[in-house]
Amino acid sequence: MTESLDDALAQRLDFLLDADALKTVVRRNAIRDGSRRENSAEHSWHLALMALVLAPYSDEQVEIHDVIAMLLVHDLVEIDADDTFAYDDDARETKPRREEAAASRLYDRLPDIDRDRVRRLWDDYERNDTPAARFAHAIDHLQPLLLNYANQGALWREHGIVASRVRTRNETIANASVALWDVAQALIDDAVEMGWLAE
Amino acid sequence: MTESLDDALAQRLDFLLDADALKTVVRRNAIRDGSRRENSAEHSWHLALMALVLAPYSDEQVEIHDVIAMLLVHDLVEIDADDTFAYDDDARETKPRREEAAASRLYDRLPDIDRDRVRRLWDDYERNDTPAARFAHAIDHLQPLLLNYANQGALWREHGIVASRVRTRNETIANASVALWDVAQALIDDAVEMGWLAE
Repeated sequence: MTESLDDALAQRLDFLLDADALKTVVRRNAIRDGSRRENSAEHSWHLALMALVLAPYSDEQVEIHDVIAMLLVHDLVEIDADDTFAYDDDARETKPRREEAAASRLYDRLPDIDRDRVRRLWDDYERNDTPAARFAHAIDHLQPLLLNYANQGALWREHGIVASRVRTRNETIANASVALWDVAQALIDDAVEMGWLAE
Repeated sequence: MTESLDDALAQRLDFLLDADALKTVVRRNAIRDGSRRENSAEHSWHLALMALVLAPYSDEQVEIHDVIAMLLVHDLVEIDADDTFAYDDDARETKPRREEAAASRLYDRLPDIDRDRVRRLWDDYERNDTPAARFAHAIDHLQPLLLNYANQGALWREHGIVASRVRTRNETIANASVALWDVAQALIDDAVEMGWLAE
């Protein structure tokens, strides 16, 4: 089919069809009702929606649409590199190399003109040195915390994760939003009190 | 937990946790690899990503971030109203009423200040009288067409959908993008030629 289209359009459609595979990348945490594990595509949607709704809580001035665009693409590298569990230290060590290779393969198939527009979003997210990237990271940390809390800490209990690790892991939220870091701390403290997370 | 938070933040977090249910709304079409049906949350992510990448093909000047924000929320009403199959004429008749009720229940739980910011996106999408809404509708039509084509017309064959209905259903793409309507027509023509869609 795509032979008859102009090259740039055909490349973009191929990229978008390949991106569909993010729906098959399964994360460790469950969706809210606990019925199954979450995939990275629906996770990305949830983050983007959260950014839209929680925009007023960024401490720094951010263009929320930049945050949303970043969140839409930030996990695409998992199509090749798979999701890396937040509390798997060995896998986290090789993550940058695996994801860099994935980014090159995925984004280099887009027309040159998209390299700045699309690939740069992922680079900006990874560098994490802009207000938009910091807020995107905060949302990416808050969401699994919310879901794990809603599931009464099933993931923490399953993997024997203790509160100090959850606190350290999520401190990055404080770099973007005092209010959302307060939420995170309240969730963690409450999970400890409920016996869902060991202190 | 949320008792200790200020009301607006607690309302927003409750809304975002409820929104998680969109991951359990199952659509008729399969994901690209054909392994299972698509849910409306990952579908919304795919549309938002498509809008980002295909922005250059809007015939009218659009603020693509408005299109993306619209696509992130446009299916939330399905949490109550369920997905309505594009070729189910009876269900399509009751769709506006079911979705309007769902919108009231969902969005009215957000703080007043978000009514304009979030609920309005859905209203604008439904009214479909702005360039951004027209482009959002075009993407929402092109995506299942792409997936159905990639799945060799499995959905069309299963439900006995003929090419003329697919053409009529997707003509709305032409209101937003000549280039993407060309794609849609090429997909339909090719599907007919391959025997995946009856003429």
